[in-house]
Formats: sequence, structure tokens, C-alpha cells
Amino acid sequence: MQVTETVEITGHLMDTGLLSRVLDDIRGYGGDYTLDKFDLGYDKDDPSTVRMTVGAEDEESLQRLLMRIQTKGANLVHPGEPEISDVSQDGVFPDGFYSTTNLPTSVRLNGHWVSVQQPEMDCGLLVEGETVRTIPMSEVKVGMKIITSAQGVRVTPPLVETIEDAFGFMDSEVSSEKPQRVLVKQVADGMREAKANGQKVLWVGGPGIVHTGAAPAMVAIIEAGFVDILFAGNALATHDIESSLYGTSLGVDLARGRGVEHGHEHHIRAINTIRKAGSIADAVKQGVLTSGVMHSLVQNGKSFVLVGSVRDDGPLPDVYTDVLEGQRAMRAELEGVGYCLMAATMLHSVATGNILPASIPLTCVDINPATVTKLADRGSSQARGIVTDVGLFVEHLARELSPTYAGAN
Amino acid sequence: MQVTETVEITGHLMDTGLLSRVLDDIRGYGGDYTLDKFDLGYDKDDPSTVRMTVGAEDEESLQRLLMRIQTKGANLVHPGEPEISDVSQDGVFPDGFYSTTNLPTSVRLNGHWVSVQQPEMDCGLLVEGETVRTIPMSEVKVGMKIITSAQGVRVTPPLVETIEDAFGFMDSEVSSEKPQRVLVKQVADGMREAKANGQKVLWVGGPGIVHTGAAPAMVAIIEAGFVDILFAGNALATHDIESSLYGTSLGVDLARGRGVEHGHEHHIRAINTIRKAGSIADAVKQGVLTSGVMHSLVQNGKSFVLVGSVRDDGPLPDVYTDVLEGQRAMRAELEGVGYCLMAATMLHSVATGNILPASIPLTCVDINPATVTKLADRGSSQARGIVTDVGLFVEHLARELSPTYAGAN
Amino acid sequence: MQVTETVEITGHLMDTGLLSRVLDDIRGYGGDYTLDKFDLGYDKDDPSTVRMTVGAEDEESLQRLLMRIQTKGANLVHPGEPEISDVSQDGVFPDGFYSTTNLPTSVRLNGHWVSVQQPEMDCGLLVEGETVRTIPMSEVKVGMKIITSAQGVRVTPPLVETIEDAFGFMDSEVSSEKPQRVLVKQVADGMREAKANGQKVLWVGGPGIVHTGAAPAMVAIIEAGFVDILFAGNALATHDIESSLYGTSLGVDLARGRGVEHGHEHHIRAINTIRKAGSIADAVKQGVLTSGVMHSLVQNGKSFVLVGSVRDDGPLPDVYTDVLEGQRAMRAELEGVGYCLMAATMLHSVATGNILPASIPLTCVDINPATVTKLADRGSSQARGIVTDVGLFVEHLARELSPTYAGAN
Amino acid sequence: MQVTETVEITGHLMDTGLLSRVLDDIRGYGGDYTLDKFDLGYDKDDPSTVRMTVGAEDEESLQRLLMRIQTKGANLVHPGEPEISDVSQDGVFPDGFYSTTNLPTSVRLNGHWVSVQQPEMDCGLLVEGETVRTIPMSEVKVGMKIITSAQGVRVTPPLVETIEDAFGFMDSEVSSEKPQRVLVKQVADGMREAKANGQKVLWVGGPGIVHTGAAPAMVAIIEAGFVDILFAGNALATHDIESSLYGTSLGVDLARGRGVEHGHEHHIRAINTIRKAGSIADAVKQGVLTSGVMHSLVQNGKSFVLVGSVRDDGPLPDVYTDVLEGQRAMRAELEGVGYCLMAATMLHSVATGNILPASIPLTCVDINPATVTKLADRGSSQARGIVTDVGLFVEHLARELSPTYAGAN
Repeated sequence: MQVTETVEITGHLMDTGLLSRVLDDIRGYGGDYTLDKFDLGYDKDDPSTVRMTVGAEDEESLQRLLMRIQTKGANLVHPGEPEISDVSQDGVFPDGFYSTTNLPTSVRLNGHWVSVQQPEMDCGLLVEGETVRTIPMSEVKVGMKIITSAQGVRVTPPLVETIEDAFGFMDSEVSSEKPQRVLVKQVADGMREAKANGQKVLWVGGPGIVHTGAAPAMVAIIEAGFVDILFAGNALATHDIESSLYGTSLGVDLARGRGVEHGHEHHIRAINTIRKAGSIADAVKQGVLTSGVMHSLVQNGKSFVLVGSVRDDGPLPDVYTDVLEGQRAMRAELEGVGYCLMAATMLHSVATGNILPASIPLTCVDINPATVTKLADRGSSQARGIVTDVGLFVEHLARELSPTYAGAN
Repeated sequence: MQVTETVEITGHLMDTGLLSRVLDDIRGYGGDYTLDKFDLGYDKDDPSTVRMTVGAEDEESLQRLLMRIQTKGANLVHPGEPEISDVSQDGVFPDGFYSTTNLPTSVRLNGHWVSVQQPEMDCGLLVEGETVRTIPMSEVKVGMKIITSAQGVRVTPPLVETIEDAFGFMDSEVSSEKPQRVLVKQVADGMREAKANGQKVLWVGGPGIVHTGAAPAMVAIIEAGFVDILFAGNALATHDIESSLYGTSLGVDLARGRGVEHGHEHHIRAINTIRKAGSIADAVKQGVLTSGVMHSLVQNGKSFVLVGSVRDDGPLPDVYTDVLEGQRAMRAELEGVGYCLMAATMLHSVATGNILPASIPLTCVDINPATVTKLADRGSSQARGIVTDVGLFVEHLARELSPTYAGAN
Repeated sequence: MQVTETVEITGHLMDTGLLSRVLDDIRGYGGDYTLDKFDLGYDKDDPSTVRMTVGAEDEESLQRLLMRIQTKGANLVHPGEPEISDVSQDGVFPDGFYSTTNLPTSVRLNGHWVSVQQPEMDCGLLVEGETVRTIPMSEVKVGMKIITSAQGVRVTPPLVETIEDAFGFMDSEVSSEKPQRVLVKQVADGMREAKANGQKVLWVGGPGIVHTGAAPAMVAIIEAGFVDILFAGNALATHDIESSLYGTSLGVDLARGRGVEHGHEHHIRAINTIRKAGSIADAVKQGVLTSGVMHSLVQNGKSFVLVGSVRDDGPLPDVYTDVLEGQRAMRAELEGVGYCLMAATMLHSVATGNILPASIPLTCVDINPATVTKLADRGSSQARGIVTDVGLFVEHLARELSPTYAGAN
Repeated sequence: MQVTETVEITGHLMDTGLLSRVLDDIRGYGGDYTLDKFDLGYDKDDPSTVRMTVGAEDEESLQRLLMRIQTKGANLVHPGEPEISDVSQDGVFPDGFYSTTNLPTSVRLNGHWVSVQQPEMDCGLLVEGETVRTIPMSEVKVGMKIITSAQGVRVTPPLVETIEDAFGFMDSEVSSEKPQRVLVKQVADGMREAKANGQKVLWVGGPGIVHTGAAPAMVAIIEAGFVDILFAGNALATHDIESSLYGTSLGVDLARGRGVEHGHEHHIRAINTIRKAGSIADAVKQGVLTSGVMHSLVQNGKSFVLVGSVRDDGPLPDVYTDVLEGQRAMRAELEGVGYCLMAATMLHSVATGNILPASIPLTCVDINPATVTKLADRGSSQARGIVTDVGLFVEHLARELSPTYAGAN
């Protein structure tokens, strides 16, 4: 090995397999290592620390390897200053760009550590004077300064609080065989804690919320103050509005609990009605839209970001049809978010998982285990998954959070 | 075509595709047909009637064909008297035996129609003097008299009440996108109606009832009088008892809503404890078992039939290890059942579906759509399927059925 | 009932439940009906015809009702001429617009039937001189002429060829328990027939094609001439290109069949590389991209349309980030398509199902039954669903279609 | 803490989270620990060793705790001699019985370590003179000698070969997004290796093997010598025989790849036919059964054990209707098994997992991820899971293993 660096990693190295994965990465990238020091935590809640020397065949390989293991929290003992390169083509990062995680990250500029603003996955690190922020690939412009080294960058993975927590998710949280009432209560507590801290609660929802008859319960939760922002697509809003205008939702007669085909074209007429009004808020103002989740968000002054997809009809006038604009609008709402609940949507859940800092607690509720698993696989490892019926779950949650909600039985 | 017979069928022939399937069967068995008469119901709730002449190449083919279409309600216009053959080998039906459905069936003996007792699928028809009853293959003995013709047998499919009902199940009932509160209420109404009619409510359950934390809710429902019989396996009872003795259920710490591995061996110690006591009822009497679903069934004088499977540990002393004996014990409990709820078990649900007359309303609740679909595929077409979380479903059901149940939040 | 019209419907009315659903719609919309004539087909392959008088409370209700049942093929006996209204607001249809199906449709203009070009679901009907074509809501401009009546419009549902076909899909095609080799052969035959007719084969694919190791098999099929167009998202193309550049695909080491975490950030570097080259085709020309599905499409002069979604990283420079532009690009490729295979993507499958005329045979392959079911639920009733492993399916398909492909074992 | 013992554990303690789980168990059982020594393996393939002192409040709690952690390989440094108690009630273990794992286990008798015969989960340890073997609870008789201590028992977990292997299963093997051809090859290699070592290959199969059209491929594999024993239920054998006698399998017309309802009752006639013959082997001898999986097993002198379940019709005369007898028959076949493939059955897979020593490599193939996950959850941690279509998988496997098999296209 021609070139080496010394790195250190602290955390529940044994329990969570973290060290093993770092060592595995080193070999996977063709590198080698020597363990220099190993401090074992005695108590199961104590972290351990390992220092090791990592080597690779050449400087470029070493940089790539260091970037890689840094995403797991293995930082340089002597970080040095970062290498910074100019962008020479709009929308293209310089070669060897540092690819970010959603973990808390710092950059060493002029001998000081500067916190990276808005940690987000798969971005570059943009240096602007004394500040550093993440920037998506599509946003970079010629002349911007981007970090192209592992040197000078430090990542701090959140300490998993206890060993049980570390294993909770991987082993068995993604399971439908859990005492569901307890899980409902935990989600309610998470939302209450965020509000008590003056933070916002973000919901990410799919049309299943309407199809399972949970819209009235969600309205109660909005009114109780536990929905500050909603991220969704055209479908949730359309079915909610269709349900309000016609009492149906894509062929489901909500009042009778039975599938009837009527109303299949209602959704396209509902969209036309809102487009005629100008926007969802306009339709509320004009008295066209008088109930439902979207109505309640407007009435209570809450935010929503609707981003379109290739399968949309219409869409509603509020929908971002350009997905990059949609992502920008979502990012703009993340400031101050303290809890995130994802319900019944894989597309918008993964999209939100991509841009959400790892430090924000997030729970994903879906009847399909694959949705939760995919979310976890893509890096949102702070996700807690609950496999359950979204309709009954939101119903229970409303009874927890809304003092006056008694259900619609 | 050498031999022919005239049959008639009445029902919602158009709506439900019933006629089409009968005609399809005729061709599939190499037969032919002429439509003789077609009375169309004007109103969508009116049945239609078709009379047709069916032909086949020889007598044996015709009999097989007639038996086949009779399972769909196409009966002979001139039924004649049945052919009856003696059993010549224990456990083996005579060739050409009439294979039963779970529909109401009559046999013409000495010029009178005699109702078949206990309609059940895939059995033979045993003639004993003036009575006829179904008999499973494994129960026949040398010398018994078994019907071996379609002649003399009449099947009466239940009139599907409305067209919507007919389509409800096939098209979309097996869906997780349904307003779940409404479905809970429908199940509660079905149970109340059965009890109001002096009939019994049968539950068929899997261990998911315990794993999802629904046991306290089920206990409330037992105490409210809406569980008369439970069909289950070794697993439900063991996990319920383990949960009562140790507070755990196969590695799930119920109180904390988190998977912990402790207690994996608790289930085998729980079984040993009950075996030592003699039986579940003895354990209750001795004060060893003091809470849970099985305890509540014993305390309230309700019945249960536990049938084993090849994957059982132990098993509990109450478990039938011979599956044929288990089936017999289940059959013995069916008298007077007016409603059946199946929750979180494919094995016992299909087993019960096999022996349950089609006239008994049944609802199957499972988080896995495949379970409900399989049940329907195997002939229990009166099944209503609800894809939802069993834990939250039973919790809601308890709030509907038990005046004092307030949940365990 | 104040206003009435006489309609006629022809088809396998009994077998497929079609008549029942029409009658159900009439009631669902508050209308009434009298059956005037019923011609029953004798043979199971013969269609039946029903004529009936339909009534509603007022003219507007009647129009809505007639539009509704027309989508099932119940056309006016005396069609008259359509009502045509001017668009008065960009992107908004006139009130009472006729909402289209994807079935063959004609409009009566000046006493002649004119075929509607490009039948597509949930559009309006735009009259331009002597021609009529579908137009999506977002494309209409002030002054355009849109049909706003059921009068003057005729829909021709494809005759389901045999009763078995009609039931095949609903009952059991969406099942994993099918002889899979036979299904592979049927898909291969469908593609061969389209090519023999001088038509194009459209593939709609998700990243699962790459993850399951099926890319080499798909390349063989492209080279054998059975992929003319690919509709996909950023993910399939990115993972294919990542696999070509780095031998990995989102953490899956394809050569060893084992999940390793390496290469998670490779996908973002792969995108950057293609953005730097300018486009996928440029990357092929520059010798940067030398293998894989996208490379093979470029080399063989085949088309692809990549449409973005809110969860995309990058994206690749070829990806439409505006979903409406993406839909337009997809529509532009549909001319001459004679067979469509959808594999491993719900999003793009539903999007394609929305714009594909019902007359084009389509097969949807996915390991998740829900994908196929959703596709069918949304109106693409000509869909044939196969629940199987996409990797092994495409592998088998390559052996069927490519004379030289021998697998990569 | 009043009583203590010193234990030692060796293995990939860090990587696999093993140590963490042991420590977690200690707390979960109310115990405490001091780490005495920690030898870290330098290389990622080197095992580590930890020695610690474990304490509990009283002797009984300590024994339970020691038994618990021993199942993970934490053995006493000074094992001493075991406590042995007499059985005082048939079918009931003495209090405090040692509950076994399926790992290699030894017992110290008279100063020597004796290997436990046939390691199996959830059994007791029966001492007979100088030998020790596992015994299921239902088999113990009054007077037998059963071990009732952790003292004197030692468990040796198999060293996970590499870290990647350890993580392979937990993280991502249970995924449908894998290069499937590679996985087929790995299974084929496992079977070839077992045969090369003079060992037997055990198949555990469900009816999906027949429904997916894989029976001809399985027959080719039997003939190529890679099926020595088949564990299954009544369903696989019945559908295989029905398919041979009538060309159908529970309503699936195998030749045409389309669901038809014909033949639904064929399965009950097929069973009657075999009962009449006496047994499956008799039916083969009499020329009644001339093809299919069961025929091929009989013709090639291979073993099968069919165990019944509560949902069986018939059953076939070869089926064990008593599940405990069935378990005994399965155990009797395990001698010499060197590879196990489980395909398309949860019930029989879990049953086999319960009795199979952990040292035998096993692969579970199912289209339903839950089946594989359940298997792993229940302790068969050596299981490798492949989520794929069983039909195409067995087809591929036949092409790998059978020189002459060319498929049935």
C-alpha cells in the first residue's frame, strides 16, 4: 500500500455491526487496514472507539475509500483542509466530488469546523465564503466551488441510544406482528414532543389515507394541531377532493364500505372543477370545496407540497409538474421539522427520505412491508417501520391526539 | 351425442357469470347443450331461469357432467331416484361416487326429497334408511350405502341477494383500500344478528391475534358473549398462555412494542407447565393460568377445538394430534353456528371453510391478501374478505361489541 | 322519469357480467330502465344484444348517465349529433365534457361517423374540422371545441374472444401458481405476431430488470429485434449504466449474487458521468458507456422515453423532469405499437396503461400481485397479469426469442 | 448478585452482533456481568473471544440465564457435571429442563464430553448410560433421565465463515431483487457438493411446485439423482397425482396456462383412486400412476414422508394423519442429509427447520418473502432465502442439474 491515513470511529461498534461494515468497505474498495487502538465500552450503553490506519494503492483510491467509510462515521484523525474544485459545466459536479450523507457533517475551513447546512443524501458540498451547504447535482452552476476530497470533512453519525434500539429496526420492527396500540401511542408521543419543542410535524401521505376512510380522522388531527406540512402527490389530493365533492374515491363508496364502480370518472371532473377555480385554496375561498383533508389544511393555514408523477391525470393546479421544482419546494419546507410520519406512499416517502436530515425522527406506516424495507434500504436508517392498516392506524392516532374525536362509527 | 338429460338452473345467471360457467363446464367435460327456455328477470334483483338439454357420449360421461354442473345449481328437471352403491373397502368410496358441495342439497328417496344433513365439501352422500348425510372419505366402512349418480340429487345455491353483493367479493372486497371502520361495524352487526337469532358465533384464529396485542380485546369480546367456539392450532393457545405466564409471545415484548429475543424458549416451558397441570381447563382450575384468551374461554364455559400441525412443539395436552380426529371434533361443534369470523390463520381458515355449510355467513380478516384469496378460490365463495391489521381490527371490534371495553392505551 | 333515450349493447353480456354492470350504473346514477329486447347468443362464443330505454330526472343527469354507460359499450340507438362547446379557460374543460375511455370511439359529425384518433382514458374529445382526437385536460386552450354530450358519440368495446378469456384474467390470472413456461411462450408469441404484422413492441420497465440480473437477457432480446421502444424512469437507466460502469447496481454485487453495500454512491457518480458526456447517446458515442440495456438501445437505433419522479437523484440528462412533457413524449411513440410488455414497475405501467388504446395487447409481469391488480383496477382491462420473478422471466424470454442466447450461467 | 459463573464465547462477536445479544439476554433475565477478557481477531475472518463473569439473584435464575446464553454459544469455563432429574409424568419434562437448540451440543458425563445425538430445537436432553440424545416433550416417559442444568452442557455455534455471509442473510438475502441465475447455480452447487460427499439431498415441497408447472423439471432432477427424500403434505402429492391422472391441478389447466374450473373435484377422485390401490407405491406397481413427481420417487427408490394437516381432504393412504407420528417419520430420515431445499411451503419448511441440525445448509425458495422471514425468525438462522418464482426456479435448476433436460417449451 502506497498511501495511508489514520481514521477513528466511535459508536456501538460491536452491537450494530458498524465496525464490521467499515472493514468490509475497506476491502471492497481494494484497501487494507491495521487496527491501532480499540477502546471497548463496558456497559451496553457505552460507545466503543477504534483507531486504524487505512491504506490504498494510490491517492485517488484512498480518497474514494475515505469518503466511503466516512459515510459510516470513520473520520480522519488529522482531517486537514478540504480540496475544493470549480464547477466547469452547469449541472455537473467536478470529478471526485464528495457525495453526501444525510448525517450531521462538518467541513474544516481556515482551521475551523463549519457545520454543513441541511444535510441531504447524494448531494455535493458547496462552499460559499465561510459557509458550506449541500447542493443537488442539477442545481450546480459554472464557477461554484465544490469539495472534492475526504480530507477536511467530518461526519457524526447519531449515537444509537441503546443496543435494543439498534436491533429493533433491523430484526423485527418491519413486522405486522406487533402490539399495534403501543405503536400508535409511540407515534403520538413523538408528535407531541416535537410540538412541545416548538417544532413542526411533517406528514407524507398517499391516497390510501382517503381509500381506507381515514380522512375524517386526519382532519381531526389537523385541527388538533399535529399536521403542519403535508407532502403528497396528485392522487391523495384528488381523491380527497373527489370524496368531498361526490362522496366517492376512485370507485369506492366510502359510506357503504363496498366497492362500486360508480364515480370512476368523478376524479377527472373533480380535477377540472379545481382547475376552473384556480387552485385548491381558491376553491375553498369560493365555497366550492367545503370538507376533507385539503380543505382542512387550507382553513387551518397549514402548508402542503404536491408533486406530480408520470401517471397523473389533470393534474390539480397546485401540483408541481416538474419534479425538480417539486423537490425544491419540499426542501423549502423542511426548516423546523421535528417529526415525520409517512403513511401509505412509497414514492413520496422515499423522496422525502432522500432530503430529510437523519436527525429527524421518522415513522413509516404501510400495509405493505416492502415499502418500509425499501425506505430503510435506501439509507433512511433512522426510519421506524410499522406494518399495519393505515385506515385503522390513523383512526387510533386521532383518538390519541384529538380530545374531541370519537370516531365515525 | 348418445344420451341426454334436461336440466334447469335459476339465479342471477347473467350478472354473476353463473350460466357462462355452467356452459363452460359442459364443453370442458366434452358434452353439448341446447338452450330450451330462457326466462329473464326484469329487475336486477330478480332471478332468471334457463332450461337446457345436455348431452354426452355415454352414460358415465353424462353422469360425471351432470354431477359437475349440479355443483353450480343446474338440477335435473326429472330427477328420478339416485343410484346407490355399497362400499366394498374401508375408507374408499365406490367408483362414480357423488362428490358434494357445501350448498344445501336434497336426495330423492322413495319419491320424496330428503334434505342432506351437514352439507360439506368433497364428501360422499351416505344413505341410512330414510336419512342422508355427508360422510368424509376416511370414515366410510364396508357395507355403507353411498350415492353414485347425479340422478336423484338436487342442489340449491343460495340466491345471491343483490348483484352488487355478487360482485362485491370478486371485484374488490379483497382489498386493503376500504373504509375499515365500516367493515368493523358490519362484522359486529353480523355477530349481533346471529346471537339475536339464538345462534352461535364461531371464531377461527391464528397466533397473530396474540402477537398484535389483540388478546385483551378478544377477552373483552368473549366476556361480552360474542365468542361461543374457537377453532385454532397449538400456536394461538401456546402464545396466549406464554403471554399470560411470562408476559412474552415468541420474542415479542408486548408491553413495550418492541422485538426482543428473550423468552424464545418460554413457549416450550409454557407448554410443559400446562402438560403438567393436565389440560388448559385444569391449569385454570389449579390457578396456574389466570388470564388471556384461553383462560377466558374456560372461565366463561365456551368451547374450543385445537388441532395440531406438523410444525408444533409440545403440543399442549388439549391439542388433537391426529388431524382426522381434529376434523371430527370441529364438525361436532358446527351445529347452531350462525356467524363465523376467521382471523390471522390460513391453515385453520381453509380447514373450517371445507366443513362449513355455505349458508353460514363468514368473514376472513388477514393482513395478507393471499389468505383471503385462497379461501375464496377453494370454494368458500360466501366468504367476505377484509385485508387489514388484525390487532387494530379486533381492538375496534371490542369497542363495538363490549360496552365496558375502553382499550388499553 | 322525465327524459329518456334508447340504448343498445352487444357483447358477452351474460358471461362477463357486462349487462349487470351497466344496469348497476343506471341505478347508481339515479336513473331507471326498461328492457326492450334481448337477443341471446346460442353458442358460448356468440355475442348477445340488449336494447333498453333509459330514463333520468333531467337532461343533465341523463347525459351524465349516458356517458357513463357508454364507457361500457351501451350506445344510443339514435345517436344524433354531439353537442360541442368552446373552451373558455386554458387547461380547463367546459362543464359536462365527455370523459373518454381507451376503447375505439367514433363521433357523428355532419351525418358521418368519424373515428377518434388515439383513444386514451380520461381525456376530452377535441373537434378540429372533420377530425376528432383525444386531448388531455392540461393541453386544452381557449377557443378549442370540445364535445359535451353523450349524443353523437359511440364506443365499441372489443369483443372478448371467448368466455374463458373473459374470466381468465379476473378469476385467476393474477396468480403466482401458473405454469410459467407456458406464459413465457405466450408473451414471446405475442411479440412475434406484432413484429410479423410490421408493428412495434413497447417495453415498460423498472429497475428490477437490472437488480434481478436480467439486463444481459434483455440486451439479447433487443438485439433479436423485440424491443422497439422502452418507457422507464431514471432508476432503470441509472442502475443499468451504473452496472455497466462499475459492475454494481444499488448495493447489489451482480456477479456474486450477494448483497454488498459497496457502490451505493456509484449511482450518483454514474449520473454525473453521463451528464458530463451530455446524454446517454453521447456517452455511447464517446466510448464512455459500452454495455448494458441503454447502450444496446442506442446502438440498435431503438427509442426510449425516460420520465422523472420526485424521488430521482440527478437525474440523467435524458430524463424528462416535467411529467406532462414526459407524457407527451410517451404519446408520441405509441403510433404503430402492436404489443406491450410491462415489467417490474407500477408507476410507469399505470402511466402507460392510461394512454395506451385498449386494442393493444398488454402483459404485466411483476413479483408483486398488487401491481397487476392495480393496473387492472384502473381500467386497463385488456391487461394480462403474470406474477413471477422478473429476472427468471426475462431470462426465459430471451431463450425463446434470441436464437443465440444461451444464458450467462 | 449472590451467585456467579464465568462463561466464554468465541466467534464473530463484533460483526454479527452476537456479543451484544448475549449481553442483552443477561439484562433481560435480570442478571449482570463483568467483562474479564476480550481477544479481538485482527483479520475480518478471525474470530474474537470474550470471557465474562455472569451473576444472578439466586441459583435458579442463574441456571435459566446460563441456559439462555448458552444457546448463543456462551459456555461455562468450568462446566462441571450436569444435574440430571427423573421424569415423573409421561410427556412432561422435569422442572428446569434444559431446552435445546439445533446447534452442535455436548454434555459432560463422568469427566468426558459426550456429543448429543441429533441436535434439534426445543427438546430435552435424555441421558441413557453413556449417551445423550435430544427427545421431544411428547416422547418422554416416567423414569427417563433428563438434564436440568446449564452446568455440564456445551454448545458450539458454527463459525460464520465470513462477515459478508453473516450479514448476507439478515440484510438483504430475503429480497426479490437479486441476480437469480447466480442463486440457482449456488443451490445446484450445494446439492452437487452434498452428493460428492456421499450425503443425501432433502427436498421440502408444497403444491406450488405442481401449480407452477415445475413437476416435469423436478422429475428430471429426481432422475438426475438430486432428490433423495421429499417431505411434503397431502396437497403436493394429491395435485401431482391428480395432474398425472387427469392433466389438471386444482382448477389449473397446466397445458394451456390458463385457469379453468374443470377438475376441481378431480383431486378427491384422485385420492380415492390411490386409496383403492392401497398406497402410492401400489398404484405405481399396478400401473395406475404412471407419471409425475410421486411416481418418479417410487420408480427411483427414493423416500418420501407425507404429513397431514387439518385442512386435508382424504387424505392419501401414505399420509401420516397423526402429526407426532409424522414428526417421528421425518426425524428418521434425517441421518446423512447434507443439503436441504425448501420450496413453496411454509408449514413443512418450519416443521423441517425445527428438527434439522443447524449444521446442514438449507435454502428456502418462495415467492412470498414472509415464508423465508418466518423461517429465519424461528431460529433456523442458517437458512438462505430466495424470493422468486418456484416454477421458473426449479426449471432453471433442472437445466443446471440434469444433462438431458431441455425444458418443455
